[in-house]
Amino acid sequence: MKVSIPKGMRDFSPAVMAKRNYIFDTIKKSFQTYGFEQIETPTMENRETLTGKYGDEGDSLIFNVMQRGDKLVNEVIALKNLDELTSSELTVKNFNPSVKNKIVNNFTDGALRYDLTVPFARYVVQHQNEISFPFKRYQIQPVWRADRPQKGRYREFYQCDADIIGSDSLLNEVELVKLFDEVLTNLGMKDFSIKLNNRKILSGIAEVIGRPEMIIPITVAIDKLEKIGLEKVNEELTQRGLSDNELRKIQPLFQIEGSNAEKLAQLSSFLKESEIGLKGIEETQFILNTVADLGLRKAKLEVDVTLARGLDYYTGAIFEVVTNEANMGSICGGGRYADLTGIFGLKDMSGVGISFGADRIYDVMEELNLFPESANTATQVLFINFGDKEAAFALPLVYQLREAGIRTELYPDAAKMKKQMKFANDKQIPFTVMIGEEEMISGKLSVKNMENGEQSTITVEELIKSIN
Amino acid sequence: MKVSIPKGMRDFSPAVMAKRNYIFDTIKKSFQTYGFEQIETPTMENRETLTGKYGDEGDSLIFNVMQRGDKLVNEVIALKNLDELTSSELTVKNFNPSVKNKIVNNFTDGALRYDLTVPFARYVVQHQNEISFPFKRYQIQPVWRADRPQKGRYREFYQCDADIIGSDSLLNEVELVKLFDEVLTNLGMKDFSIKLNNRKILSGIAEVIGRPEMIIPITVAIDKLEKIGLEKVNEELTQRGLSDNELRKIQPLFQIEGSNAEKLAQLSSFLKESEIGLKGIEETQFILNTVADLGLRKAKLEVDVTLARGLDYYTGAIFEVVTNEANMGSICGGGRYADLTGIFGLKDMSGVGISFGADRIYDVMEELNLFPESANTATQVLFINFGDKEAAFALPLVYQLREAGIRTELYPDAAKMKKQMKFANDKQIPFTVMIGEEEMISGKLSVKNMENGEQSTITVEELIKSIN
Repeated sequence: MKVSIPKGMRDFSPAVMAKRNYIFDTIKKSFQTYGFEQIETPTMENRETLTGKYGDEGDSLIFNVMQRGDKLVNEVIALKNLDELTSSELTVKNFNPSVKNKIVNNFTDGALRYDLTVPFARYVVQHQNEISFPFKRYQIQPVWRADRPQKGRYREFYQCDADIIGSDSLLNEVELVKLFDEVLTNLGMKDFSIKLNNRKILSGIAEVIGRPEMIIPITVAIDKLEKIGLEKVNEELTQRGLSDNELRKIQPLFQIEGSNAEKLAQLSSFLKESEIGLKGIEETQFILNTVADLGLRKAKLEVDVTLARGLDYYTGAIFEVVTNEANMGSICGGGRYADLTGIFGLKDMSGVGISFGADRIYDVMEELNLFPESANTATQVLFINFGDKEAAFALPLVYQLREAGIRTELYPDAAKMKKQMKFANDKQIPFTVMIGEEEMISGKLSVKNMENGEQSTITVEELIKSIN
Repeated sequence: MKVSIPKGMRDFSPAVMAKRNYIFDTIKKSFQTYGFEQIETPTMENRETLTGKYGDEGDSLIFNVMQRGDKLVNEVIALKNLDELTSSELTVKNFNPSVKNKIVNNFTDGALRYDLTVPFARYVVQHQNEISFPFKRYQIQPVWRADRPQKGRYREFYQCDADIIGSDSLLNEVELVKLFDEVLTNLGMKDFSIKLNNRKILSGIAEVIGRPEMIIPITVAIDKLEKIGLEKVNEELTQRGLSDNELRKIQPLFQIEGSNAEKLAQLSSFLKESEIGLKGIEETQFILNTVADLGLRKAKLEVDVTLARGLDYYTGAIFEVVTNEANMGSICGGGRYADLTGIFGLKDMSGVGISFGADRIYDVMEELNLFPESANTATQVLFINFGDKEAAFALPLVYQLREAGIRTELYPDAAKMKKQMKFANDKQIPFTVMIGEEEMISGKLSVKNMENGEQSTITVEELIKSIN
């Protein structure tokens, strides 16, 4: 019999779990220190809570949980009698998408969480009378997407989100920049950039060019500048319908460079006719100044006008974090959304949030060897089992070590010495303790340091002291 | 628009999450100290991994994730053309169960984890070459069951399991008894009983009576002794087919009482003709003696021959933990299974495991008021926001508190004082700090203790010292 798990899913073995926990615990600690409180939402949401929120492609990637029992049988019978399916020769190609959608809806009992943001919005609306706003919540839970699995992309993965909802103060943006710096510095990263943009600046650019409806294609094209060069970007913009005159107007943007202050000065000049654009600059300036007053530990905060993530929903600041120590793409992101809960009927709730990409952070830390010894939660001391009498003598000592907080095991069977030592080696247990006739008389323990092979004969108190 | 979540599902709000985390963290800490290592398995397993493992009723309670896209359309077309569905007038009542089962299998892409034990068995078989046996693993993850929701029973709930697999030493049972005691004592419980039985004793009883195949109905009837009385139990046993002679033989069992030693002595006499029964007594005796040598902190360890949980799979020791301080049923359980991984083709892997019922433990702790102050992870200090200048002055102080590990917030907007104080009250934040003109000059903070209303003017260092 071959055992396996569905594609895109993962088992996490102990060594990996310990490191993942180290990341989550570090993030949680900072979230809490900053006054964020944890919530959890259920794995399953009503299907209509999720559909229509992630675009058509997103909708098609939602995992649906099927009806059961009599309800399912009723749906099967209804399907069997469905008029739309009686007449034609049905094939995958000629199948009517709206009929398919109807069938999916009817057969579905619930849908798996696709991200943490939409369930959070639903939570806020549902619990609005219990919540004290501004509400600072964090949430660390898995989400599911039926994406094609590939290296680094899974069908089940954790998201770690922190949001503040119910306040449009820019101090929240400042807090989140500081939080990125705090968490990633605590995780041991030494060189990373928090890229900062503002949707209002992008809106201003599109306005100045005279094509406000083109904001997304324009920004996407600008975003490619570094990769494909100025000529190709201009070609793309022409293809997308910018006139020569409009193209000429946009050129100063491609020259923007220098420090954050220099970039903002050039942008101010470019956007001088755009009220919304200047508002975006003012907001960015406030964030930069306030963060500069407070200081950052390891992060660089960089204005990046090409940053275009989440343009469908972000309305103010946009964040993205990249490490400069490894080739990894963005490891965190976020931004401000003026109206997250409007989709569920609660208006005028401005929010701003960030998300830590746990899987990518894991890969970076592994590559840079950043996991500390303390991330290891495996057994520290193994008592070798030489038989019933010896084991009975050892047991109270095992508990003495545990009471001192030392992770300790007694090998449960009186197996061959070689097998027990192999067990200790394979699990990389740093110390083994042997108790035989002699040790039972003297009350002292034979302790072997498994790393350097050194043996010593010491009391249990001395062993505890040497480890703690 | 009305927002809701599927029935039997729950949102966890911050105050509840903090308490749940306190329980999970306490359990995790003891698991680790005892040398258990954490794994996680995916939410979705292949359907065939789960089916046939939980009985017919269990199978019907598994949540299935539906196929998507072209695969789903293909299944719909196949269903439409299914011969078994063409001829008859289909109704829920006459629907062929095997056809239903076939449809469910075809429409299913994966199935949600129903417990942690079967995925663990699958994990052990799949990763057998990476694992050092005996393998002590723990796992804390949600599971899903399409049970009818009712008070205290949810469709999504966490399980917390610890198992040792690959060793038949009874020292493992001793460890698990100690672990129950350790965790529940650490959680603040003062009076609880670990009930201990052994499947071999129950087999012996059925053997002595001469009806080995009746082991389960006999044990279930015995289990009702306290609730329904001797007469009714005997009636039930007669109904289930025990002869008068067999019924007479079983009577001494109902008289068993006294200390653990007295109970075992009476059982020994009852089971003197049954080899397997005596083996069960010997095992129980070893566990009792070894635990007695080590001592227990708060738990009482009680032999209970009526304990009948998990008879479908347990082969040795059976555990159940009840609190004597609240009316709650069992809060933990467990036992030994001789052949867990056999279902996936790996033979001769004896294991023993326990499970903590987090939801019930939560309810007990709530009822007994056992959650300590440290379980609260909410904000400790709120800086009131009087305006831009004051906020700018306050921000570095906020970070000074955070660096000292104090959970601190600055209210992000210069809202009315009353609104900010209400926010602090609603969130039960113990201290508020006010910084106005005067405080900015003196550099001292006006601190209000929100519990007793006392105000003081102190330095930030004094505030840190008073909280830490």
